[in-house]
Amino acid sequence: MSSSPIEGPAVVTGGAGAIGSVLVRELLGRGLEVRVVDNFSSGRRELLPSAPPPGRFRLTTADVRSPEAYYEEVRGARTIWHLAANPDIRLGVADPTVDLEQGTIATFRVLEAARRFDVPRVLFSSSSVVYGLPNVYPTPESYGPLEPQSLYGASKLASEGLCSAYAHCYGLRSYIFRFANIIGPGMGHGILIDLFEKLRKEPARLEVLGDGHQAKSYLRTEDCVGGMILAGERAQDPVNIFNLGTDDRISVREIAEKVVAAHGGRARIEYTGGQRGWVGDIPQQLLAIDRIRSLGWRPSTNSAGAVDRTISELVDSRKVSDGPKSR
Amino acid sequence: MSSSPIEGPAVVTGGAGAIGSVLVRELLGRGLEVRVVDNFSSGRRELLPSAPPPGRFRLTTADVRSPEAYYEEVRGARTIWHLAANPDIRLGVADPTVDLEQGTIATFRVLEAARRFDVPRVLFSSSSVVYGLPNVYPTPESYGPLEPQSLYGASKLASEGLCSAYAHCYGLRSYIFRFANIIGPGMGHGILIDLFEKLRKEPARLEVLGDGHQAKSYLRTEDCVGGMILAGERAQDPVNIFNLGTDDRISVREIAEKVVAAHGGRARIEYTGGQRGWVGDIPQQLLAIDRIRSLGWRPSTNSAGAVDRTISELVDSRKVSDGPKSR
Repeated sequence: MSSSPIEGPAVVTGGAGAIGSVLVRELLGRGLEVRVVDNFSSGRRELLPSAPPPGRFRLTTADVRSPEAYYEEVRGARTIWHLAANPDIRLGVADPTVDLEQGTIATFRVLEAARRFDVPRVLFSSSSVVYGLPNVYPTPESYGPLEPQSLYGASKLASEGLCSAYAHCYGLRSYIFRFANIIGPGMGHGILIDLFEKLRKEPARLEVLGDGHQAKSYLRTEDCVGGMILAGERAQDPVNIFNLGTDDRISVREIAEKVVAAHGGRARIEYTGGQRGWVGDIPQQLLAIDRIRSLGWRPSTNSAGAVDRTISELVDSRKVSDGPKSR
Repeated sequence: MSSSPIEGPAVVTGGAGAIGSVLVRELLGRGLEVRVVDNFSSGRRELLPSAPPPGRFRLTTADVRSPEAYYEEVRGARTIWHLAANPDIRLGVADPTVDLEQGTIATFRVLEAARRFDVPRVLFSSSSVVYGLPNVYPTPESYGPLEPQSLYGASKLASEGLCSAYAHCYGLRSYIFRFANIIGPGMGHGILIDLFEKLRKEPARLEVLGDGHQAKSYLRTEDCVGGMILAGERAQDPVNIFNLGTDDRISVREIAEKVVAAHGGRARIEYTGGQRGWVGDIPQQLLAIDRIRSLGWRPSTNSAGAVDRTISELVDSRKVSDGPKSR
């Protein structure tokens, strides 16, 4: 690892989140020192390593919008993996300040911290929602114009612009990852969580938002994190933009049927109708992944496989948490 | 005018600026009620109409980031023309908070005001700098990826994303105008002002930043404003993005020679060298303007003509202000 461009202490904002915590383990596994900054608004302590290697792991409970609270963590860091954000797109439609503050302004503060302490690389979790409703599928990184449909999407686009400007003005390298739907253990929101939660409350009937024909690409957390790390190691432009997704998509209808099957198969599925699940939803999403593939990355499974793997983890975790002797 | 989509009271933020004040006159000339909001950080009172039509003009001195100071102006408005911003790209590189606050956050507050008072149309002055250093000339609105080179560019991209999200989430229409270099009377900054100012201080020698081969498209203020109004009248998508420029470009070298000629022709031009004039500069800019052309718009002159017209205005205004009996 001594010659890797991502060598040295790594700061992970949102490191206690579903994606961040997988990244933290992966970086620790590579022998790096990892410093997690999380405000635990959606992150969870139990997702962090219970017995991290001594001297190579620090946790700071801080909001990235208050940089003085975590400046000490940034000092001497060689990478900042900036994953902290409001994870719930719908919340941002109801209250537009959420994504401005937890998205755009948070990214600005992180980039300012990187500039102040000469951190050479900032790697940022953007999203496929910056594409809005594109008319090209699979959608390449060069697609335009970018017309986000949600305040969350707007904050991701704003953060991308900041990452680009900081790279060009101040000489750091920035990495922008436009995520497909990322799924895996530890998620606090998303379609699978929503559907499981609905079935728990009302086992005979499953209401699904939209007409069920919304179809998106799903990528496992571990594949997503693998792509980020590989890009950090191999791409060395001032600004490096990569889609991260799978080659296929799966419809909400198929996902709902999988969830019902995993739940005993008895629930009746009812669709609320309409092309979109909710205001700000992107009903179709499929990303061109040639660019990250050209670096040697491959997802370990396709969208259906990612959904299956995650459903079975959810079933297992619920068996434990719903069992008579669990808390 | 009764059937025009831009009929009704118009709010113009930055209405006392070089572009805003031309827009204000044009809207007044069309019989509209105009409400100017300006904090006079770069706007100037003398650019506003000295004898506006009674009952159809109001001026509020307020910063758009403090919406309560101008809510009364937004109430009942049918359009908001949001032009207020830091006009100096170089300032934003020196202090990154400037464009975050005066760009991104200001646009957010304006859009929030539009949402609160059900203003159906927001028309926003973006910039060609959102394209960064494109590899396609002339650059079309669909160009991507967008990699701004300055904090100013990042704030324009962030504002575009917000305009898009507000249109899609809350049902207003937004108009995004990506300006070429806009020149005309009343400018407080820009290459022509810079060069005239240098010659005034040191008439024998003109230092020019870069190698002089930077070449951009220049558009007159009145043509720019004409394009904005036409698009507001004729384009009715939720989000309407238009480049506004001319079909040609002119080099810094040619501009410098024109300025020296207008100043008596005796100054020696010295280039500092390098492809860029300054950090964050975009050395080459030429926009595809087919889209705004298809609505029936034509610029009244090309880049060279726009520069010539503006130089002769500057010479005239300086003759007055340098004259023995002027203030």
